[in-house]
Amino acid sequence: MADRPLKELGWKTPLEVARKPSMNQIAKTGICGIMDPISPGIPPGSDTATLTLLGYDALKVYSGRGAFEAIGSSVKVLPGDVAFRCNFATVDENLVVLDRRAGRIANEDASKLAESLQKIKLEKPLDAEFLFKNTIQHRAVLVIRGPKLSTVVSDSDPGKVGEKVLEIKPLDDSRKAKLTAEILNELLQKFHNVLKEHPVNKERVKRGLSPANIILCRGAGTVPNIKSLQEIYGIEGACIAAASLIRGVCKVAGMKLIDVRGATGTPQTDFMAKAKATVQALKTHDLALLHVKATDVASHDGNIKQKIELIERIDCMLRYVLDNIDLGSTYLAVTADHTTSSITRNHEGDPVPIVITGPYIRRDDVEEFNERTCAKGGLNRIRGMDLMPVLMNLIGKTKKFGA
Amino acid sequence: MADRPLKELGWKTPLEVARKPSMNQIAKTGICGIMDPISPGIPPGSDTATLTLLGYDALKVYSGRGAFEAIGSSVKVLPGDVAFRCNFATVDENLVVLDRRAGRIANEDASKLAESLQKIKLEKPLDAEFLFKNTIQHRAVLVIRGPKLSTVVSDSDPGKVGEKVLEIKPLDDSRKAKLTAEILNELLQKFHNVLKEHPVNKERVKRGLSPANIILCRGAGTVPNIKSLQEIYGIEGACIAAASLIRGVCKVAGMKLIDVRGATGTPQTDFMAKAKATVQALKTHDLALLHVKATDVASHDGNIKQKIELIERIDCMLRYVLDNIDLGSTYLAVTADHTTSSITRNHEGDPVPIVITGPYIRRDDVEEFNERTCAKGGLNRIRGMDLMPVLMNLIGKTKKFGA
Repeated sequence: MADRPLKELGWKTPLEVARKPSMNQIAKTGICGIMDPISPGIPPGSDTATLTLLGYDALKVYSGRGAFEAIGSSVKVLPGDVAFRCNFATVDENLVVLDRRAGRIANEDASKLAESLQKIKLEKPLDAEFLFKNTIQHRAVLVIRGPKLSTVVSDSDPGKVGEKVLEIKPLDDSRKAKLTAEILNELLQKFHNVLKEHPVNKERVKRGLSPANIILCRGAGTVPNIKSLQEIYGIEGACIAAASLIRGVCKVAGMKLIDVRGATGTPQTDFMAKAKATVQALKTHDLALLHVKATDVASHDGNIKQKIELIERIDCMLRYVLDNIDLGSTYLAVTADHTTSSITRNHEGDPVPIVITGPYIRRDDVEEFNERTCAKGGLNRIRGMDLMPVLMNLIGKTKKFGA
Repeated sequence: MADRPLKELGWKTPLEVARKPSMNQIAKTGICGIMDPISPGIPPGSDTATLTLLGYDALKVYSGRGAFEAIGSSVKVLPGDVAFRCNFATVDENLVVLDRRAGRIANEDASKLAESLQKIKLEKPLDAEFLFKNTIQHRAVLVIRGPKLSTVVSDSDPGKVGEKVLEIKPLDDSRKAKLTAEILNELLQKFHNVLKEHPVNKERVKRGLSPANIILCRGAGTVPNIKSLQEIYGIEGACIAAASLIRGVCKVAGMKLIDVRGATGTPQTDFMAKAKATVQALKTHDLALLHVKATDVASHDGNIKQKIELIERIDCMLRYVLDNIDLGSTYLAVTADHTTSSITRNHEGDPVPIVITGPYIRRDDVEEFNERTCAKGGLNRIRGMDLMPVLMNLIGKTKKFGA
């Protein structure tokens, strides 16, 4: 949701331009500030940002993105498994990437391709097996299971269009890393062989769509060893998110994943269904995390107009939440997990705006919710890791340090 | 002193409502901000808060409250001793707590009771001895000395009225913890036996007062291993505080404890005597810490009206200080060691206001001293641990880091 001022918007940010009466109402009744998800200037991933927003020290506990993505897609990841975040992508005959998202391939096509890939057999006698599952659009997860694996391997995803797919390499001298890289290179070659001849892709080309003829892998990760929110604060949390990465982080934090029909993690998600699920979840949980991925998607696409529209839809979603929770006994915080620039189309290290409203809040005089007005608010500048203690303090769930 | 906005005050805080011309004058001439004693959202104890305000990293050096309380009450605590903070309390015949403070028993009664308790002999041949001393009102300290003791034991104080006194239990598997728990359980039983038959208590019941028929123990602690302010900054510090906990922390930090006649640590304390002692102390010391406990007491009692009155009395006290120090050569900082909510009646993790005035300060445009106006000040949001370096820097006592 957060962005930098854009020339196209008269040097305003999408949040500054969007019509957002609900967010402004929350700002008026609450305490505002800006927040560095990790620390000033450090661009967070969606995984590390969500970890910190849940109160974890991501710099200490982060163990790679892959496992979160897999867990959030209902793929079981055991301690020792190495999980990867994958993309269906399009390459030419020289393995140069033409589209990192295979034209944001539809779930239907991706499912059919994934089914075929799961049938592949690993040949080398390495005691390893794999699970491959598509999630939303071009996104997928790959889990390698075996006795001698390591996360210390490079990505095959070059991260950019116009560059060649990379060979996966061990990043230390261990035998485990070497073995893991070998397994992956073999597997990804086989994936490519199957995909490039697959009827679904032949059909896509006929329809003028990019064929999903390769799987790009990145973010080798294992399950992090963290305490749950129950253990830390004695609370029950619920997660209303469609993006598997966010779901994975919440699951590892011990939160209940609420499935919402129509919630897709795309700009076409059913915002109102998510709002309703959140209000419902709050009846039986101490904390509900309502996450919308769509504004980030629009930013990565550099689609400023869509980003503004999505902020306005989020605002409508918040209207339902505002009208259906009791702010005399409930706290509501609105923020972004990171700044995504619609110009660089990347996550950036700029702080995000934050507002908290609810009873006994030291209300400030900020009247609008955006990156600049919030910087004048009573919270001043906090870190992502501070948000959970601040919220838990308000609901009486922090322990006094000292006596 | 710091609080949350209260419905009873039209959603203002006691500081916002109180008439406080001196504090406002300090705000007008100084630089303001908000400060998280430990970190955002974490409710500090009075001990950890004072440690951080003196520049120590409480998260690293804190070793329990008991030793501070004892040292501050002029009870000698040696390395290895285990000290407890105690309350004279009232229980029924089933050891259910009726009043955790025995009606805030007067010092006179508590002294007589303590004298009798100190005569008790420990029977078990455990090479242990004890010191018991009452401090202010219901407060007391207990120090156990012996070769095989541990702080890893639970409290006997259930912390709440209506609950039964707890047996002290070892919190690890060590022989030392087991032994310490055994000694304490024996001793506290003997205390109870003496107290319930004591003439002072029989007299109290006749006068309609709660008998102090039990000693509740909590916060096992040892002397922390920290450098003095002399060693760290090369300064001589003076402490003008009546609360033994604060005195203990200051003593451990190497500060001189100034005894002030009429300073009691209660709302009835002699504010002006403390102000005079502070001005006097500054003639021979680099730093004077003037601490008032009374506002915290009022908050724990949920007495909003009294809290406001006490803030106004603190303001009068500050008038004397302002009129009798040279602000052309002296720095004056005003803050709170933590937020105490008059509603929850607990320490809370909300930040406190802070102002620093004196020569060469980057004065800001804040005109009033309270939780919300200070949030707009030039100091922005700092941490308790930062205050001493900030002050020492102003008086030229910090060492350059680097060259």
